[in-house]
Amino acid sequence: MTAYKDRSKEELLQEKSQLEAQYKEFQGKGLKLDMSRGKPSAAQLDLSMGMMDVLDSFTDLKCEAGIDCRNYGVMDGIPEAKRLLGELIEVPADNIIIYGNSSLNVMFDVVSHAFTHGIMGMTPWHKLDKVKFLCPVPGYDRHFAITEYFGVEMINVPMTPQGPDMDLVEKLVSEDEAIKGIWCVPKYSNPQGYTYSDETVRRFAALKPAAKDFRIFWDNAYNVHHLYDEPQDVILELLSECEKAGNPDMVYKFSSTSKISFPGSGVAAISASKANLDDLRTHLTIQTIGHDKLNQLRHVRYFKDIHGIETQMKKHAEILRPKFEAVLEILDRELGDLEIGTWTKPHGGYFISFEALDGCAKAIVAKAKEAGVVMTGAGATYPYKKDPHDSNIRIAPSFPPIDELVQATELFVLCVKLVSVDKLLENM
Amino acid sequence: MTAYKDRSKEELLQEKSQLEAQYKEFQGKGLKLDMSRGKPSAAQLDLSMGMMDVLDSFTDLKCEAGIDCRNYGVMDGIPEAKRLLGELIEVPADNIIIYGNSSLNVMFDVVSHAFTHGIMGMTPWHKLDKVKFLCPVPGYDRHFAITEYFGVEMINVPMTPQGPDMDLVEKLVSEDEAIKGIWCVPKYSNPQGYTYSDETVRRFAALKPAAKDFRIFWDNAYNVHHLYDEPQDVILELLSECEKAGNPDMVYKFSSTSKISFPGSGVAAISASKANLDDLRTHLTIQTIGHDKLNQLRHVRYFKDIHGIETQMKKHAEILRPKFEAVLEILDRELGDLEIGTWTKPHGGYFISFEALDGCAKAIVAKAKEAGVVMTGAGATYPYKKDPHDSNIRIAPSFPPIDELVQATELFVLCVKLVSVDKLLENM
Repeated sequence: MTAYKDRSKEELLQEKSQLEAQYKEFQGKGLKLDMSRGKPSAAQLDLSMGMMDVLDSFTDLKCEAGIDCRNYGVMDGIPEAKRLLGELIEVPADNIIIYGNSSLNVMFDVVSHAFTHGIMGMTPWHKLDKVKFLCPVPGYDRHFAITEYFGVEMINVPMTPQGPDMDLVEKLVSEDEAIKGIWCVPKYSNPQGYTYSDETVRRFAALKPAAKDFRIFWDNAYNVHHLYDEPQDVILELLSECEKAGNPDMVYKFSSTSKISFPGSGVAAISASKANLDDLRTHLTIQTIGHDKLNQLRHVRYFKDIHGIETQMKKHAEILRPKFEAVLEILDRELGDLEIGTWTKPHGGYFISFEALDGCAKAIVAKAKEAGVVMTGAGATYPYKKDPHDSNIRIAPSFPPIDELVQATELFVLCVKLVSVDKLLENM
Repeated sequence: MTAYKDRSKEELLQEKSQLEAQYKEFQGKGLKLDMSRGKPSAAQLDLSMGMMDVLDSFTDLKCEAGIDCRNYGVMDGIPEAKRLLGELIEVPADNIIIYGNSSLNVMFDVVSHAFTHGIMGMTPWHKLDKVKFLCPVPGYDRHFAITEYFGVEMINVPMTPQGPDMDLVEKLVSEDEAIKGIWCVPKYSNPQGYTYSDETVRRFAALKPAAKDFRIFWDNAYNVHHLYDEPQDVILELLSECEKAGNPDMVYKFSSTSKISFPGSGVAAISASKANLDDLRTHLTIQTIGHDKLNQLRHVRYFKDIHGIETQMKKHAEILRPKFEAVLEILDRELGDLEIGTWTKPHGGYFISFEALDGCAKAIVAKAKEAGVVMTGAGATYPYKKDPHDSNIRIAPSFPPIDELVQATELFVLCVKLVSVDKLLENM
């Protein structure tokens, strides 16, 4: 196939009329498909149904510390849950606080805490004229929503396959005391599926921020969410790297079992230095008497240890891998030579990131929607929903059954072609 | 028995030496008892063990709206949970948002939201020079801890058996725009077990606060927590009273199933006007993707409706009632005529409130502790832990088995006598 940019006007017009006919056909099908959010499919949820049986009315509901998990108490998590999540997050159990069902909620609360009370006794952010966060882009919309909600000025930092542009990160954080944080999804990043290189992690650990209360918000959401037995991405553990670099307090690591067991009924955790955790505990001790220990117990009794989690993740991968491969096969087949888009081929995580021609993303998403396929809103992967090039589209292959996913992707590539043809014709 | 105040110095000295001998005997027993917190006992927790069986790996985990409760979504609660908690809170399901496992956490978040973003678009409290709360005293230490944590100035308002001194409440809220809230446990209050009268509730509903963002924080924690089939306290429903009085937005009602099912693994909720709930939803939609819907489903499938909850509460009462009666019997028997203390005789809730002679509470609690019985810290029932009369002690009969409770109470009355004798001798 000849690249669109090398075709004549006449050829493009002919292509357009064919594409429009195909699009009309799709519209006639009355599709109602959703490729918008990173939700596990029903088949994936079925993998964890055994978890509903591990606690029953005959079960001893004491944790290993001898505490009755049915009652009040144990503010920061039962020991075995700290150990399990510690294994997942790759830090000692002592560096863990277990929270409720949502790591997003933990991130929100940590930001809120920084605004109302300050981090480790430093000035509460609400007393500052300006608070800024660095936002590797494209990134996760719900991170950006938190900082936007608190009036934080968000600064785009371009992503590369090795992680954020660290020259820029180093320069900005060392120069500007108003920069208090950076949002990171370091492994199988949302949406590109990139994993930060060892050098990137070490440069993070060695940052010299102007602000003493600068923190790296390290949302390691996809640490064990591989698609393949081989290759699997590996990432350096940041908390210990920060310790080695003399910056032990510079990072909050977030994690949860949401996409391991049941989204919304999992267990979330934060890991950080003892000083940071003590600071968060002063907040937590006012905020709650304790999180749901029975659900912590349920998770530990079901998974037992990291090997139990890894086995589960292989089963998830068996369901997810064909979906990713189906999407990638269609993208390759239909767009491979056309030079109207590029896309990532991640080894794990929940997303494929698509880069359309500049100025085309919104139109593509709108066109897909008109024919019954909901994509993540164009722009969602950027702070303030403003993609400066209007080019990035997040593809979420996990939720639909594979036959629907194939249909949705076929429509998607058709929309990419249509909008791209229009764009090229416009400029002729 | 002659009242202590009517005894001669010699008689008091003789009494003192007898009491000291008894105290020494207690010390020899090596007791380790806890009457400090309002925790259900193991026997009460056993009542809900059936809840561990209602969801298993063969259960259909869709809620009645057809949504898979295992997956993400449904930010403010599944319909049947709203209905159940609505029945519990005595408001329509539409006036409910379901949260996570802790109503204390909801209260904290609502206060935090008011500080960072303001209520219903009004000025965020962190921008105000001064924020004040009214605190009916004695009251619940964890309420006071939240407002203290946010730097709120807390103003004591005396409790009466009909509720807070409403003359004072009306006067203060109408005069001072800095007063933004009042903490209330309106039924079987913590610690006195008082229930607000109809007149009190109506006067609350008719308040004319100077601050438009004044809210009544109505923590109806013990609404169905009766000790007896008869008498049971009844309270007017405040949200509808506020509507009638033209103040629909003036109240947040909080509730949870913590002391109905499992503390820490229950379901919490807020009820308020639609305008207030919409305001909270704008916050919630940034904070979380949703709370634990499987636990919501577990509660609804187990209790079914308010009748299921009421049946459960009768079983709780059968366990709690003998404990309250045992404590009251000892207080009556040992202190009945001595005029060195008064105490409440509640029809429900989790506490008995004891008023010692002025200046004696701390010494009594310390003396009990020395002999191995932990009471709620003296002062805890007041803001800043400062009981101006050093007289109030909260007794929590729920947790210990009854034989331990009897021992602990026998020691408690002994400590009351000892400290009171000392006090009277001091003043002779």
